[in-house]
Amino acid sequence: MSHPRRRGSAGRASLGTLLRHVHLHGPLSRAALARLMGVDRSTILTLTAELAAAGLVRQEHPIGTTGVGRPSLVVRPESERVYVLAFDVSADRLVAARVALGGPIMDRRTATRPPAGAGFDDEVGVLAGFGRDLHAAAPANSVCVGTGVSYSGTISPGDGKVRYRPEMGWVDQAFGTDLQRALDIGHPVAVGNDAHVGAMAEYQRGAGAGAPNLIYLHGDIGVSGGILVGGELLGDEGGYGCKIGHMLVNPYDGRHCRCGARGCLEAETGQSALLAAAGRSDEQFGRDTVRAIVRDARAGNEAAAAALSEIGGWLGIGVANLVNIIDPAVVIFGGTLREVYAAAAPQVAARIAQHTMPTTRNRPRLLLSGLADDTTLVGAAELGFAALLADPLQHTAHAV
Amino acid sequence: MSHPRRRGSAGRASLGTLLRHVHLHGPLSRAALARLMGVDRSTILTLTAELAAAGLVRQEHPIGTTGVGRPSLVVRPESERVYVLAFDVSADRLVAARVALGGPIMDRRTATRPPAGAGFDDEVGVLAGFGRDLHAAAPANSVCVGTGVSYSGTISPGDGKVRYRPEMGWVDQAFGTDLQRALDIGHPVAVGNDAHVGAMAEYQRGAGAGAPNLIYLHGDIGVSGGILVGGELLGDEGGYGCKIGHMLVNPYDGRHCRCGARGCLEAETGQSALLAAAGRSDEQFGRDTVRAIVRDARAGNEAAAAALSEIGGWLGIGVANLVNIIDPAVVIFGGTLREVYAAAAPQVAARIAQHTMPTTRNRPRLLLSGLADDTTLVGAAELGFAALLADPLQHTAHAV
Repeated sequence: MSHPRRRGSAGRASLGTLLRHVHLHGPLSRAALARLMGVDRSTILTLTAELAAAGLVRQEHPIGTTGVGRPSLVVRPESERVYVLAFDVSADRLVAARVALGGPIMDRRTATRPPAGAGFDDEVGVLAGFGRDLHAAAPANSVCVGTGVSYSGTISPGDGKVRYRPEMGWVDQAFGTDLQRALDIGHPVAVGNDAHVGAMAEYQRGAGAGAPNLIYLHGDIGVSGGILVGGELLGDEGGYGCKIGHMLVNPYDGRHCRCGARGCLEAETGQSALLAAAGRSDEQFGRDTVRAIVRDARAGNEAAAAALSEIGGWLGIGVANLVNIIDPAVVIFGGTLREVYAAAAPQVAARIAQHTMPTTRNRPRLLLSGLADDTTLVGAAELGFAALLADPLQHTAHAV
Repeated sequence: MSHPRRRGSAGRASLGTLLRHVHLHGPLSRAALARLMGVDRSTILTLTAELAAAGLVRQEHPIGTTGVGRPSLVVRPESERVYVLAFDVSADRLVAARVALGGPIMDRRTATRPPAGAGFDDEVGVLAGFGRDLHAAAPANSVCVGTGVSYSGTISPGDGKVRYRPEMGWVDQAFGTDLQRALDIGHPVAVGNDAHVGAMAEYQRGAGAGAPNLIYLHGDIGVSGGILVGGELLGDEGGYGCKIGHMLVNPYDGRHCRCGARGCLEAETGQSALLAAAGRSDEQFGRDTVRAIVRDARAGNEAAAAALSEIGGWLGIGVANLVNIIDPAVVIFGGTLREVYAAAAPQVAARIAQHTMPTTRNRPRLLLSGLADDTTLVGAAELGFAALLADPLQHTAHAV
C-alpha cells in the first residue's frame, strides 16, 4: 500500500479538496478557492497548476468577460475530457451514463429491466454493452477515471457483492467484479445501495445541498433509506448500513414483506402495497404505474386517492419515527416515493404532528428529491469519482 | 473570544488529550501515552510537566514496584485534589456526588424525590444543599473544576433549560442557572438529558467501552435513548436530539403516552405500562417497584411474568427498529430497562429475529449497563469534566 509518491499526503489531500470543490460547485476563482480551503492564493496557484498538468482542470476567464478590468481567472473542471461510467440498476429499468467531471450527464442509455425471473447474467451483459457503447461514443481525447453503480438491493461492504434473493435464499453475487470483467476496463467497479448513494447525491447536488444531517427515503419496488450525519453516511464504515424499509410500522395485521416479516415500512408503503390498496395488483410494477395512480387520484379517482392516503399514513409513521430517533434537518423523498409523498403530504404531516414531540416536530424540512429520476444515477457517478477525488494525480496516472 | 494565551491551540489540545487519557484509562506510562497520542516521549514529558505544575496529574512509580529495574514512571490523575460535582435527577430520587478526576465516586448524597406535584424549587434546593455539603466534606486542598447534571427530561441545547411539563404546558425552566445560583460556585452548571449522558458514560466507562457506535436505552418512569455515532452523540450539535421513547411501536390501540400520543415506545415499555400490565397500577413508581415485579416473576408469579413478557415484546420492536435504522454495534439497557431486559431478553431476541434482515440481525451485541444505577450519575460527572479536558490550564486558572 505504501510506495514512493511525489507529494506528501497533505499535498495529495489538498489536490483532492480543490478538485472536489470545482467538481461539486463548478468554476471557482482562485480567490474563492483560497477562502474555501483556508490557504493562500499562491498555494492555490501551485495546486491548480498540478491539476491542470494532469488534465483535470483548466484556467480560463469567466464566460462573457472581455477586455480591461475583467475578473481573475476561474478554475473549472475538465468536463470535456474526464468522465466516469455510472450505472443505475432499479426494479424496472437499467440506466448507464457517461457523467463528466463537474457532474453533467453527457450521454445515456436506458433499457426496461427484464421482468422478474430473468437471469443475473443478462443484467450484467446489458449494462456492459451500454458501457462499451458509451466509451466508444466518448470524445477521442477523453479518459474514464472510474465506474460506479447504484444497485437496488443490499450491498456487502468491502467486496461490493450484492445480496440477491432467489427467492429468499439470499445469495451473494459478485456483481461489481462481474461487471468489471464484462466491461474489461482497468479500474474497479464501485457498487452502492441505491438509497445510500441517493442520499449523498441529494446532499451534494440536490434538494439537500448544504444540509449535512439528512435522511433520504427512496422508493423503488421496495423502500430504502440513507442517513447522513455530518455529511457522512451512517453505517458506511462497516455492516450493511441502515434498513429503514424494514422498520416495523404495523405490528398487528401488517402486509407481508419480501423479507419474510409483516408490517415493515416497505410492505406498507412499497409499490406492492400501493397497487393492492388501489385495487390494481394485476398491473406491472414500475414508476409508470405509480405515476398513473397519482394521476388518477388527481383526476378524482376515489380508489386511487384512498390508496395514496392509506400509504401516506404508513409513510408518515415511518417518517415520524425517524424524526423521533434521528432528528434530521431534512427528509427527502425520492424514486417513486417522490410521487407518493407529493400526493400524500397531508397524511405524512398529520402523523408527524401526532407522533413527534413539540421540540422536534417543526424541525425537519420535508422535500422532494432535487434530482428527480436521476438521484441514484448521479449517486452512482459520485461513487465512480471517489477514488479520483481522494488522490487525483496517483489515480489519473493509473487511469490514463 | 481570542485573547493571548501561553500556548497555541494545538498545545492546549494536546494537554487536554493527555489528561483525558489518564482520566479515562487510569495511570499510564509515558511510553504508553506517546504511543496513544502519536508523539515522542519528550513531548509527553513537556505536557506532563505542565499538567503536573497545574496540579492535575502527578508522576510516580507504579504501585508495588521497588528497587532496581523497576518500570518507568506512570502519569496518574490527581484524584485526591481535583473533582466535579455530579447531580442525577431521576423520577424517583435525587443523587449528588463528588466525583474525582479519574472517575472514582468519592462521596455521595441521595434523597427520595418528592412525589409528583412537589415544586421545582424544592428540587433545586435539595440538590444545592447536597452540593454545599459535598464541598464542605472535600479535602482541604481540593478544587472543584465543574458541575454536571443528568436530568430526566428534555434539555434545550445551549442554555441548559429543561423542558418541564406541568402538565403538558411544556414550560422551559432555567434549571442549570437556578442550580448554579443556589450552589453559588464560580463555574457554570452543565445539564444533559439522562439517556444522552448515560450513553457517553457507558461508552467511556461502562459496557460500551471501545464501541463508538452504540445505542443506550434508559428506563426511568419513561424511556429515553442516546445514540453514539463514531463516539459522538447524535443530535448533539443542535436540536433536542433523539426522542427514542416516542417512536411509535403500536399504531392501533396503543397505551396513552404522557406526550399526548398513543402507542409510543415509552407508553408501551415504561413503568406505567409495566405496572398496569402486572395489575399493580396502584403502587408507586420507581426502580424498587420494577425490581419487585422482576423478583416476583422469577419467583413464579404469573401476572408479573406475563407483564414482563408483554413489555419485552414491545421493547423488542423498538430495538428491532433501531437495528434496522441505525445498525449499531452495541445496544445497552440501563436504568430500570436494565432489569426489564434482563427478565425479558427472549422476547426482545424474538422480535429482533422476526423483524430485522439476515445481514443485520446478528450484528448488535445486547448488553446490560456496566455502571448499573450509576450510569447517569457518571455521565453527569463527565459533563462536568468536559471544560477542564477541553483546555486544562485555561480552565484551572479560572477554577482555582
